[in-house]
Amino acid sequence: MKKRLLIATHSTFADGIRNAMELVTGRQDSVSTLCAYTDDMSEVETPVREIIDGLGPDEELIIATDIFGGSVNNEFMKYLSQKNIHLIAGVNLPLLFELVSCLNAPDTKKALETAVDNSREQICYCNLLLDQACPACDTF
Amino acid sequence: MKKRLLIATHSTFADGIRNAMELVTGRQDSVSTLCAYTDDMSEVETPVREIIDGLGPDEELIIATDIFGGSVNNEFMKYLSQKNIHLIAGVNLPLLFELVSCLNAPDTKKALETAVDNSREQICYCNLLLDQACPACDTF
Repeated sequence: MKKRLLIATHSTFADGIRNAMELVTGRQDSVSTLCAYTDDMSEVETPVREIIDGLGPDEELIIATDIFGGSVNNEFMKYLSQKNIHLIAGVNLPLLFELVSCLNAPDTKKALETAVDNSREQICYCNLLLDQACPACDTF
Repeated sequence: MKKRLLIATHSTFADGIRNAMELVTGRQDSVSTLCAYTDDMSEVETPVREIIDGLGPDEELIIATDIFGGSVNNEFMKYLSQKNIHLIAGVNLPLLFELVSCLNAPDTKKALETAVDNSREQICYCNLLLDQACPACDTF
């Protein structure tokens, strides 16, 4: 299966986070974006359907959205009965790096489960790390 | 203490995620952005120092960066000995909504700990939710 990654969000978040990633990795031809409710896109039902309908029989699509329960994620939820679609909500930059690695993984589902677990741990309150490194130093 | 929130990332990610948030909440005057390594900003040391130096004695700054270990986050780490600075890495949209709520919390540190925990849980592999809802349905 040929794998692609789509970042789909409200507004320009998708383009912004791709730009941040590509500043580090360089251009990623397997990664595309959908920026909903911008000047070019008043609703998401049609563009989402076109993306799903455009998938070839040998293609697998990993979709990273901004928030579970949001309208962009909800629109993709309708298509989860298709075997070649993987949907992940709550994208951040660590997750995006992990998802790019998943494009080459032999077992997509297993790789995505690991990616989600790893990226959760990457959200951190940095002040607490300092507290743990030096319990006597109260930075607050 | 007057609280403000700064989203600081590589490239246009910060502006993009703020746009996504404000599409839902409307304009947030207490939220600003720093988009590093764009055409307007070749390095982060100077703009970060200017932000920190510009903080008033009655101001508290919550900083949300894109990734722990990245150059933007590393630059803010230098200032964590100041009592009025809180640094969180790995921002996603659920976290951003939580952080805006923290601007009105009486105990910033406690509110931020809760915000981080909640946003971690908001990263999810949606296909697995369907599997759990209907174990007999194998969507893969």
